[in-house]
Amino acid sequence: MAAFTFNKLVIFGVGLIGGSLARALRERAGLAGRVVGVGRSAQSVARAVELGVIDEAVALDDDVALSRALQGADIVLLAAPVAQTQPLLARIAPFLEAQTLVTDAGSTKSDVVAAARATLSERVAQFVPGHPIAGRESSGVDAALPDLYVDRNVVLCPLAENAPEAVERIAAMWRVTGAAVHTMSEAQHDRVFASVSHLPHVLSFALVEQILEAPDAQLKFSFAAGGFRDFTRIAASSPEMWRDVCLANRAALLAELDAYTDVLARFRAAIDASDGAALEAAFARSRVARTEWQERGGKKIPGDPAAK
Amino acid sequence: MAAFTFNKLVIFGVGLIGGSLARALRERAGLAGRVVGVGRSAQSVARAVELGVIDEAVALDDDVALSRALQGADIVLLAAPVAQTQPLLARIAPFLEAQTLVTDAGSTKSDVVAAARATLSERVAQFVPGHPIAGRESSGVDAALPDLYVDRNVVLCPLAENAPEAVERIAAMWRVTGAAVHTMSEAQHDRVFASVSHLPHVLSFALVEQILEAPDAQLKFSFAAGGFRDFTRIAASSPEMWRDVCLANRAALLAELDAYTDVLARFRAAIDASDGAALEAAFARSRVARTEWQERGGKKIPGDPAAK
Repeated sequence: MAAFTFNKLVIFGVGLIGGSLARALRERAGLAGRVVGVGRSAQSVARAVELGVIDEAVALDDDVALSRALQGADIVLLAAPVAQTQPLLARIAPFLEAQTLVTDAGSTKSDVVAAARATLSERVAQFVPGHPIAGRESSGVDAALPDLYVDRNVVLCPLAENAPEAVERIAAMWRVTGAAVHTMSEAQHDRVFASVSHLPHVLSFALVEQILEAPDAQLKFSFAAGGFRDFTRIAASSPEMWRDVCLANRAALLAELDAYTDVLARFRAAIDASDGAALEAAFARSRVARTEWQERGGKKIPGDPAAK
Repeated sequence: MAAFTFNKLVIFGVGLIGGSLARALRERAGLAGRVVGVGRSAQSVARAVELGVIDEAVALDDDVALSRALQGADIVLLAAPVAQTQPLLARIAPFLEAQTLVTDAGSTKSDVVAAARATLSERVAQFVPGHPIAGRESSGVDAALPDLYVDRNVVLCPLAENAPEAVERIAAMWRVTGAAVHTMSEAQHDRVFASVSHLPHVLSFALVEQILEAPDAQLKFSFAAGGFRDFTRIAASSPEMWRDVCLANRAALLAELDAYTDVLARFRAAIDASDGAALEAAFARSRVARTEWQERGGKKIPGDPAAK
């Protein structure tokens, strides 16, 4: 494992994800570099300073402070909702020095890459797209933890323009937080997460919406129990964030949604025809796959050297 | 709360549900009545005797033992998969005494009521349909707990033929286990559980099935994380049980599935049209409803005197 050190890290959006990276680098890895947090206002990142997660809070609209913040920075992390990627990069571009690497933590990657190409042009080589897989129900800097990334996966989607050393440096940063780092193309990333993350969120929101529309909604909610609780936990997620994800990853999400609708239509036909054998065979396949997934630890890559 | 005592309880299917009732009556309520367990073979209920959950094990196909088991019984509980209701009632009918009340624990009720009417004819007055809402991932008598029903809901679907005292006696039995007892019609019951239990199971099985069919299934499973884990926990449920539930509650389940497919089609159209406002509004409604449901304790009936 390559050693990782840094002089100055600038985090745009110091919430759960950005705050946990700062805490991991300092408290877990014991690194001494300076951490600057940038928020919509200095006030919005004041709490992160108060908690000792960052050294300094800067307001996004303060040209002087932002320019000073980016001066001498070795790494910039964008950890705001994906829809803000392009405006943030536009704001950073005038002050971006040649030695600075920029990475992000967005849940979608094709749109982020497009935003980076549009905004940074030939300097896109400085941008290494990334996605730490570490969501939690709680959010905000108060929920940030030094150990959030331990045994979690981080996906990087290197660009053809990225120097291998640039990719390796961002990977090394995530590794010192305890994460396993994997690489794939942005299209592959977006297909994978449309399937295992974005689609389940849409399906879960849809179930609650359907019950709400029923005339006996309150009776139904009253008798909802454990299965409903787990199935709909993600329906309590941030509406803004998931709106952005749905729009940012529209093509891949629609493809997964259509494939899902096809499976559901087949299940419907089997129920309608009382085809118990077909239902039982499909349910049994799912049970085996789900059980094996759980037994593998639920997040390891089979055959990957980083897998334990 | 009416006092509840019994002389002899006969349980068909001594697994989690039947075993927990026996343990609750004895260990929680301190009642001294005799408990007989009936299984496909005496062997299959031997473990329940070994654990002290029941006093005596009887094989279903042993006429002499079954006749003796039902002699002087005050309550019979059917706690086997719903598809076995009719054959079990047919087996019980020749030995059923006039003072014995029969109840069940099936997840569907219209089919159970039809089976009871077909099998018991005019003696259907002795059958009080019931459904304790207390599933767990583990099953079998080893998973049975004296406290399984504490603060859980039990739904009874009384028949027009049932004497009020018969319904009250079954309700009293469940109350001493710590459960809150509610009544509704079997049609209402089946609609409610098609919506909040059966449909989520089908949707969860369908997601795992869809991923299995994808060419990059292993990559997708590799990066599935917390949202997928909760959403698909119920996809590890028993294929046989859920096949039976889907078939037994077919009409109500298809109605819910069609309503769900309509909501999903609306969501699809909003994603396709990049209608962020519509998505955000729907997601926000779901979040509020899901959060309020959780805050109410997730299983209480608003305005019900039994609700705490």
